[in-house]
Amino acid sequence: MDLGFIQKLIKQNKTKIVFLVMDGIGGLEDDEHNKTELEAAHTPHLDKLASEGICGLQTPVHAGITPGSGPGHLGVFGYNPITYQVGRGVLAANGIGFELKEGDVAARGNFCTINEQGEVTDRRAGRIPTDQNRHLCSLLNEKVSIPNIDVFIETVKEHRFLVVFRGESLSGHIKDTDPQETGKKPLNPVVMKSDAEDTAGIVRQFISQAREILKEQHPANMVLLRGFSQKPCWPQMPVCFGLKSAAIAAYPMYRGVAKLIGMDVLDTGESIAEEFDTLEKYWDEYDFFYLHVKKTDSHGEDGNFDKKKAVIEELDALIPRLRNLHPDVIVVTGDHSTPSKLKMHSWHPVPVCLWSAFCRRDDVKSFGERAFMKGGLGTHFPAEDIMVLALANANRLEKFGA
Amino acid sequence: MDLGFIQKLIKQNKTKIVFLVMDGIGGLEDDEHNKTELEAAHTPHLDKLASEGICGLQTPVHAGITPGSGPGHLGVFGYNPITYQVGRGVLAANGIGFELKEGDVAARGNFCTINEQGEVTDRRAGRIPTDQNRHLCSLLNEKVSIPNIDVFIETVKEHRFLVVFRGESLSGHIKDTDPQETGKKPLNPVVMKSDAEDTAGIVRQFISQAREILKEQHPANMVLLRGFSQKPCWPQMPVCFGLKSAAIAAYPMYRGVAKLIGMDVLDTGESIAEEFDTLEKYWDEYDFFYLHVKKTDSHGEDGNFDKKKAVIEELDALIPRLRNLHPDVIVVTGDHSTPSKLKMHSWHPVPVCLWSAFCRRDDVKSFGERAFMKGGLGTHFPAEDIMVLALANANRLEKFGA
Repeated sequence: MDLGFIQKLIKQNKTKIVFLVMDGIGGLEDDEHNKTELEAAHTPHLDKLASEGICGLQTPVHAGITPGSGPGHLGVFGYNPITYQVGRGVLAANGIGFELKEGDVAARGNFCTINEQGEVTDRRAGRIPTDQNRHLCSLLNEKVSIPNIDVFIETVKEHRFLVVFRGESLSGHIKDTDPQETGKKPLNPVVMKSDAEDTAGIVRQFISQAREILKEQHPANMVLLRGFSQKPCWPQMPVCFGLKSAAIAAYPMYRGVAKLIGMDVLDTGESIAEEFDTLEKYWDEYDFFYLHVKKTDSHGEDGNFDKKKAVIEELDALIPRLRNLHPDVIVVTGDHSTPSKLKMHSWHPVPVCLWSAFCRRDDVKSFGERAFMKGGLGTHFPAEDIMVLALANANRLEKFGA
Repeated sequence: MDLGFIQKLIKQNKTKIVFLVMDGIGGLEDDEHNKTELEAAHTPHLDKLASEGICGLQTPVHAGITPGSGPGHLGVFGYNPITYQVGRGVLAANGIGFELKEGDVAARGNFCTINEQGEVTDRRAGRIPTDQNRHLCSLLNEKVSIPNIDVFIETVKEHRFLVVFRGESLSGHIKDTDPQETGKKPLNPVVMKSDAEDTAGIVRQFISQAREILKEQHPANMVLLRGFSQKPCWPQMPVCFGLKSAAIAAYPMYRGVAKLIGMDVLDTGESIAEEFDTLEKYWDEYDFFYLHVKKTDSHGEDGNFDKKKAVIEELDALIPRLRNLHPDVIVVTGDHSTPSKLKMHSWHPVPVCLWSAFCRRDDVKSFGERAFMKGGLGTHFPAEDIMVLALANANRLEKFGA
């Protein structure tokens, strides 16, 4: 849905909306349990929400498409994930919590190995340990020097790092330097649009200095850069949805995505209970809260059915604290499925339950994939419509037309 | 879904996908049985597929739209049938198995009757018998002569024929010559784009020669042409889906559609059992098989409930041969509904069952329209998304975004 269309219908209200996003919540029945993780979990409070709410399965991007965490979250927040795509550099910054300023150009870097002829022999430098990465980043941070430009080199993990260029009139329209195969030399940073001529020159200086600084290092004696990008200028939730919005998320990646769309990111702890503490603490200050539960995904990726189930039960036990705050609209969903049977993100539609006093409840009585297939939101509800529905249930949308 | 978007996500794999397309499979309960043809049929093997798979009803083009066989099939193969439209001339060539070469211009012809003033008195020449059509086509093939151009005139049925012009630099941008009503003269072939000037001249020569050749014939003494078109240049399945693809279809029309999107068309027999022989014979050579069952549609069009039901049972009995091949993904669906109660194609959503080890099964236990209304694919699953879902279940798609 076009966000400009929604924005024109927004009306102000005092109602409060809460999105509980359980990362990778959707599952598959495995051979041992004949149930999915959600179906196997003991979830009296989620079941109560489901029986009082309207339920279904949502598609974050499109039927059959497996979303990364970025697109999965953007969809749930009402932003079409195909329209709103982020560059890899910006994503990397989000992922480690590096706060990009307007105009910064970010790129994802790999430490790599080159031979005497300058040809790449290993694009990942043998996946060096993260500690060695830290050492190399501090070397670069210390020695790289480009007039009028601040350069930040930050460790991500193993061979991966983030580089950010800060200065006047920079542009992200630069092609990757990663040749994508061994036996070739790193590519020159070439402009994709003429506004990036100066930036390309700066990137060339960086690369040539980095090569010099790293030349005695082994096996990481060179860098490859890709995904040059700037923080996108997207519609902000307080404007397009009229919602003063807060994100409660322990992991940098999710805090970053929330920031891109204008949420305030609240300080919080690592546990779900601490996230609920934060929710209670800031309850009066915001219209909209996004509360992120990470470990459902982590355990799904590890193939650990029982631990994923346990996290669901941990969240379930905290639901009464949410209900005690008397929100007007509660949405419980995920950004994608991560069945422990598959040990990865998957394309399967994601359970979604919307609770409000005016939701038109269906016959669903329990919180789970197969129960939700028969729910009032259907089997392939577009994720990006959840926000519109939440706004409607919160009485925050005007009638369209006379 | 944009095929370019899908193509970027394709990854290679060894998995195999089979689409069983039962032409016109969807039905309506009739007054005698209170069941649809599918519901009345004894289908233990299809029921087993349904209970192990995920089921629903799909819309080939759009809710309420009755598809022809071309759009119906294109939808199921992942090609949006409104985006990917074929000219009537190309369709006619497909329908009789005439192999168009690149650059050929094809048109659908009608033999018609004109009076002494040259006005059309019958646009279909009294629907002359097909034998008479054959005689007229051989007359035209013998006598028409246009320098540097090969002209092929081929019988379709009754008053309908196909004409194909083969030569250098031809274009299909020419308007119909059929005035669409009696009492008017046939229209001149007028260009729609300037690249068709030469071709229009060629068509004028053809029409004037045909008029001369046919002038003593009765009642078919003239021709009307429409749907000038060239073989479209569409994304090919091996490229856009990464699937080496084979079509097993006894009828020319379906072989033609399969060729347009890059499937290899395999030699096969007339019966479903012979089609399964072909499937087994070529099993190791392809990633994707489309197997077409024609007679469900033919009997539907004849209003023969029992014979349509019998064809369904005939296919059902062959399913174990398919299962023995151990495909990774099986899709059973149709290109449209042809309820024997209506004796024609209809707009009703078409049953679809997708089976794989990772499909997230629903509670559906039997193969039929009303059972599928409660399935996990919902009641209006877009046909063009079936292929994306099949690719996902075959682990042939990368994650979108990080």
